[in-house]
Amino acid sequence: MKQNLLLTPGPSPIPPFIREALGRQIIHHRTDEFKEVLGRVSQSLKEIFFTSSPVLILASSGTGAMEAAVSSFFSSQDKVIVIEGGKFGQRWKEIATRYGLDVVNYSIDWGSAPDPNYLKQLLESESKVKGILTTLCETSTGTVYDIESIGNLTRNREVILIVDAISGLGQDKLLTDEWGVDVVVAGSQKGLMLPPGLSFISISKKAEEFLRRSNLPKYYFDLNLALKSYQKNDTPFTPAVSLILGLEASLNFIREEGIHNRWEKFSKLARATQEAVKAMGLNLFSFRPSNSVTAVWAPSSIKSSQLVSKLRKEYGISIAGGQGEFKDKIFRIAHMGAIDEDDLVVGFYFLEKVLKDLGYSLKLGSSIVKLEEVLYA
Amino acid sequence: MKQNLLLTPGPSPIPPFIREALGRQIIHHRTDEFKEVLGRVSQSLKEIFFTSSPVLILASSGTGAMEAAVSSFFSSQDKVIVIEGGKFGQRWKEIATRYGLDVVNYSIDWGSAPDPNYLKQLLESESKVKGILTTLCETSTGTVYDIESIGNLTRNREVILIVDAISGLGQDKLLTDEWGVDVVVAGSQKGLMLPPGLSFISISKKAEEFLRRSNLPKYYFDLNLALKSYQKNDTPFTPAVSLILGLEASLNFIREEGIHNRWEKFSKLARATQEAVKAMGLNLFSFRPSNSVTAVWAPSSIKSSQLVSKLRKEYGISIAGGQGEFKDKIFRIAHMGAIDEDDLVVGFYFLEKVLKDLGYSLKLGSSIVKLEEVLYA
Repeated sequence: MKQNLLLTPGPSPIPPFIREALGRQIIHHRTDEFKEVLGRVSQSLKEIFFTSSPVLILASSGTGAMEAAVSSFFSSQDKVIVIEGGKFGQRWKEIATRYGLDVVNYSIDWGSAPDPNYLKQLLESESKVKGILTTLCETSTGTVYDIESIGNLTRNREVILIVDAISGLGQDKLLTDEWGVDVVVAGSQKGLMLPPGLSFISISKKAEEFLRRSNLPKYYFDLNLALKSYQKNDTPFTPAVSLILGLEASLNFIREEGIHNRWEKFSKLARATQEAVKAMGLNLFSFRPSNSVTAVWAPSSIKSSQLVSKLRKEYGISIAGGQGEFKDKIFRIAHMGAIDEDDLVVGFYFLEKVLKDLGYSLKLGSSIVKLEEVLYA
Repeated sequence: MKQNLLLTPGPSPIPPFIREALGRQIIHHRTDEFKEVLGRVSQSLKEIFFTSSPVLILASSGTGAMEAAVSSFFSSQDKVIVIEGGKFGQRWKEIATRYGLDVVNYSIDWGSAPDPNYLKQLLESESKVKGILTTLCETSTGTVYDIESIGNLTRNREVILIVDAISGLGQDKLLTDEWGVDVVVAGSQKGLMLPPGLSFISISKKAEEFLRRSNLPKYYFDLNLALKSYQKNDTPFTPAVSLILGLEASLNFIREEGIHNRWEKFSKLARATQEAVKAMGLNLFSFRPSNSVTAVWAPSSIKSSQLVSKLRKEYGISIAGGQGEFKDKIFRIAHMGAIDEDDLVVGFYFLEKVLKDLGYSLKLGSSIVKLEEVLYA
């Protein structure tokens, strides 16, 4: 029987206890029963986001919350710095451009992380910057950015720091309040082990002031409306009830395991993945690899898209190819959400087979030995 | 044991075979397997919408698709006629105003339906109207509008007709192409028997031209992007996979029962509900009652909000109160999606009890007798 293993950077596998919650009979969203769920879930989200500020829940995929951040916190022609080092930095740029913001593009090589010193200079040389839009884990390159250092730049300026943590949240360390991050955007189908369809957005006190001043058109993603409802454990529009019931199950599980413990676990899984890849003679793509997803250069003789497709078709193991100009050049293995060491062992086992079938020369078992070595330590 | 019966106009109960699909393990959305699901579902949606045009699926609640219609088909200061006869007509007005459209408001008494002759005059006296935004079933009043007649007005004009069928679809007859409706908006948690979190929007050829000309800012709800992906059985942003798996189960079921049969069934359930209400000495609120939801004047001595709350708390039967200025004056009983005659019998059984407990004088069983009389016929 073929596997059905998702080592993709979203969606990630859904554990049985969450699937049970997703399949429950619906409850009405304008009832005390559901308000209590929302209240509990809001509290747990604050813990995971490491913030005392509200974390709003939207019925959309992650991009919806990115758009909400752009249209709710800024006004026409506001100047923002976008860090573009992959597909999701590009997405910030696209959205900001659509809304007529004045985008200062800080473009970096894919696979590298932004330089806080350069950002500091940029903030000092550009007048009236209102926001920095960036990413915790740039999913397209498997690169984690140094958000803590960027937060030090914005904390005492009239600039809000907005971080897309869609793929990073839960694996890559993020201390929202302590690091001075004003807005964190996340999605349901990655570290939170849910199906896609929910997005999340936290709002610092500083960001709340920006929210009140914003003049861009919006309705469904108007965070003013969402924040007002939030105070009453309510939502302005019908929430995605079944996903929120699943969310409660997910957050309870994460709390029980402990977020710090999970960060440590994923750091170890990431390290094991990196070493296993190298043991097969392959090279990492990222210069600052994240704990959520590992990007790897495919052997030069093999198109990564072919590798990905063969692995899925023949063995039911899903990994991701590259995006943009690296579409056929890199592949990406995710370790997020419910993924654990046994999944990596299975994934690498079949990855070795497929690489060999495609003519790549390797010693069978070399990656597994290395995985075990790192994970046993 | 308390019931858990939703006779609310969204959400409506989810049948077990759909809950099974919702709780399945996730599949990746960029695979042939999921593209095939999207292909099949798109075909079934066309059948339910009675259109040969594309029906796009968005990951949002219904309001998201309403916003997509406003921001994707119009340009700044375009003139639109909004029919405001309840909360959801108001919502069209709010969204259109947010995007700077020039709104011609056709306000009608709540509970009544728009007059096509008046609309015709309005179209003739107002220059350069680009669209009419209206509702199939105005959920807040339980009123079905004469969309066929309105379609006759727009068909040969450079005006697109946009219909919010969020609560009506599946119960109230709607022949999109035949009636000349350009855009139909729907949601998942009503006639489609799913949890909230998906919305739908159909786009006629005429509307496609408006789409290309639109200059309003948008990204997540940019139907240009969605339409382009649609041609390849894909979506521009991560779709709500689990809900779409549930959708396939729902659409298969509806196809098997037959849409015309379902329209007939709900017409009968609506008629039975109306007669049952009258048999208790109560009056209908709507002058043109829909087949999806029945709005009823509460007895003058009883606040409808109290009735609704008592019915839910003591017996687990959910009906809806009024909205806006009718909050405490009317209550609404939905008959949509998976609701069938046995649910109405149970609902009315407890409704009678609660009305009596609240001091309303009625002959016990009078509504049930009438239900059976109409439904047996």
